[in-house]
Amino acid sequence: MKRVPIIVCGLGGVGKEFVRLLSERRLDIREKFKLDLVLTAAVDIGGAAMNGPEGIDGLSMLDHVNSGNPIETFGASGIPGMSGVDAIARSGASVMVEATPTNLVDGGVGKAHVFAALENKMDVVSANKGPFVLFYDEVHALAAKNGCALHISAAAAAALPTLDVGRICLAGANLYSAEGILNGTTNFILSAMRNDGSSYEEALAAAQKMGIAESDPGYDVDGKDSANKIVLISNRLFGTRNTLSDVDISGITEVTIEDIQTATHEKKVIKLIASAKNSNDTGHLSVGPKRLDENHPLASVNGSEKAITYETDTMGTLTVMGGKSSQVGAAAALLKDLINAYV
Amino acid sequence: MKRVPIIVCGLGGVGKEFVRLLSERRLDIREKFKLDLVLTAAVDIGGAAMNGPEGIDGLSMLDHVNSGNPIETFGASGIPGMSGVDAIARSGASVMVEATPTNLVDGGVGKAHVFAALENKMDVVSANKGPFVLFYDEVHALAAKNGCALHISAAAAAALPTLDVGRICLAGANLYSAEGILNGTTNFILSAMRNDGSSYEEALAAAQKMGIAESDPGYDVDGKDSANKIVLISNRLFGTRNTLSDVDISGITEVTIEDIQTATHEKKVIKLIASAKNSNDTGHLSVGPKRLDENHPLASVNGSEKAITYETDTMGTLTVMGGKSSQVGAAAALLKDLINAYV
Repeated sequence: MKRVPIIVCGLGGVGKEFVRLLSERRLDIREKFKLDLVLTAAVDIGGAAMNGPEGIDGLSMLDHVNSGNPIETFGASGIPGMSGVDAIARSGASVMVEATPTNLVDGGVGKAHVFAALENKMDVVSANKGPFVLFYDEVHALAAKNGCALHISAAAAAALPTLDVGRICLAGANLYSAEGILNGTTNFILSAMRNDGSSYEEALAAAQKMGIAESDPGYDVDGKDSANKIVLISNRLFGTRNTLSDVDISGITEVTIEDIQTATHEKKVIKLIASAKNSNDTGHLSVGPKRLDENHPLASVNGSEKAITYETDTMGTLTVMGGKSSQVGAAAALLKDLINAYV
Repeated sequence: MKRVPIIVCGLGGVGKEFVRLLSERRLDIREKFKLDLVLTAAVDIGGAAMNGPEGIDGLSMLDHVNSGNPIETFGASGIPGMSGVDAIARSGASVMVEATPTNLVDGGVGKAHVFAALENKMDVVSANKGPFVLFYDEVHALAAKNGCALHISAAAAAALPTLDVGRICLAGANLYSAEGILNGTTNFILSAMRNDGSSYEEALAAAQKMGIAESDPGYDVDGKDSANKIVLISNRLFGTRNTLSDVDISGITEVTIEDIQTATHEKKVIKLIASAKNSNDTGHLSVGPKRLDENHPLASVNGSEKAITYETDTMGTLTVMGGKSSQVGAAAALLKDLINAYV
């Protein structure tokens, strides 16, 4: 039985779901994978909780937090005012799970947590895109120097296994390109425009009503979310060191119902496609609406589903689609990365 | 650098492609994965070739064999008359790659090779379905007893990563079911009947002309190939110990053009679906034509493409489709399993 002490940074929706899954499945995972995933510390805005190698009880901690109490008052384990960076250094964990909100301006606390973990020679499992989109080169270099692993499935489309498929299912094949529908909100809007004849504004309003789109939908509809994900995918699979500024981005706000109808008439489907070519040329990352043939594997991906297609030499074309888009899905992707990292 | 000495059994199309890929990519794999995959022995009908731990040169061996010479006359390495079982015992390999033709009557030489490898405490990577479909319980028990691993991606839809997705991409999630289009020939026929209005006979003739269907198409059109694959998938992912006789099988020979047209009219698509439920009940494996809703993820899988859909608790529904259906694709799946087993 391999013992893996874990610190979780960030107890928002994804962080809490992760702690719940970890607690709920710990016995199953011990039995099935011979891994003991132990929650040794957790940290949020006001402080931390840690209890030495013995670990803290995740379900009790969730009860405490879900009752409106801050983590830093969790019994004898609570430490008011302790920062994430300090908690990481003192946690004794061998892996840091980063689940604070993505900050795409300067990386925010997530950046501090990732660097602190790597400086303390911990592996990193992250649902937070920020540090990897903005500072991939530095993060990768520090991880390599300190012999740490980076696992970012949860940041790169979560339950849709973009990175696993490229790295594991296609191991030994040469990947020529990745092309994906990586954002559920924009795919929902484009699907509604095509299938229901809605205008962009109507489809967006419907998505907002269903909780699929944010009240400020810019991050999704302008293509930035897709761009962040394709940067992560290219960096991890093709060995690039790109950041968001390397992506040629256009969103879906200028796609009209006439464009959609013309496409349908010509047996085409308009999708917001994020693509990366595996080459040494510059300008190989892009996000924008593309007209796909109706029989293209991504053309049938409807609603808020996501998908990615890899072109390879020996394995042909492989597409994976689906995966729950939710906090549970992201938490499950964190857990999956943890299991695969240590099994 | 981890050194992995390999014996290859069977130098038909898949075995030769595997040796070619192994030779061609050895340096890349050393660099990328820190694995040295060394061909130490190869065996075919008339004998073997082996050269101690130093290994044999795969490309020269292929030149020799492709010029019409038997493996047993390959220079000083050739050993006329040596059986696969003897070659395995004397090879010094740590893994046996089984690429002889599938024999579904008694397992044939493939069965002997798999048991010999496990008795010699070697891991097994197999493109051959026979031993695993017919004798899974015994094979699994011997592997467990001797601490050996079984890797059978290449037997379970090859370049379509049915097992990797279920085992790795969905690690930690509970799988409820697997539902797949696992045979390219039958999917080609059903697609042609739907898209071109061909009769079953016309579509089969077209598939035969294109080399997609065998001149004796029974193994495919009767559903047996799909059944074998779903047995392997269920056994590996759901921990069952099923054999072919546990599958409720019907093929596509009785699907008429009228059935297809009625389905189309009702916005349904008829596909040959292999399915497995992850439960303790009996009778959970089946293969047969099913009417899918047009928006079902498998409904858009056309031509000779294959696909599989998993239903899970925390990760939602995940579908993977594509993957080259060819000897190269199968060889690439063997190589992928080898890399992932030892990396």
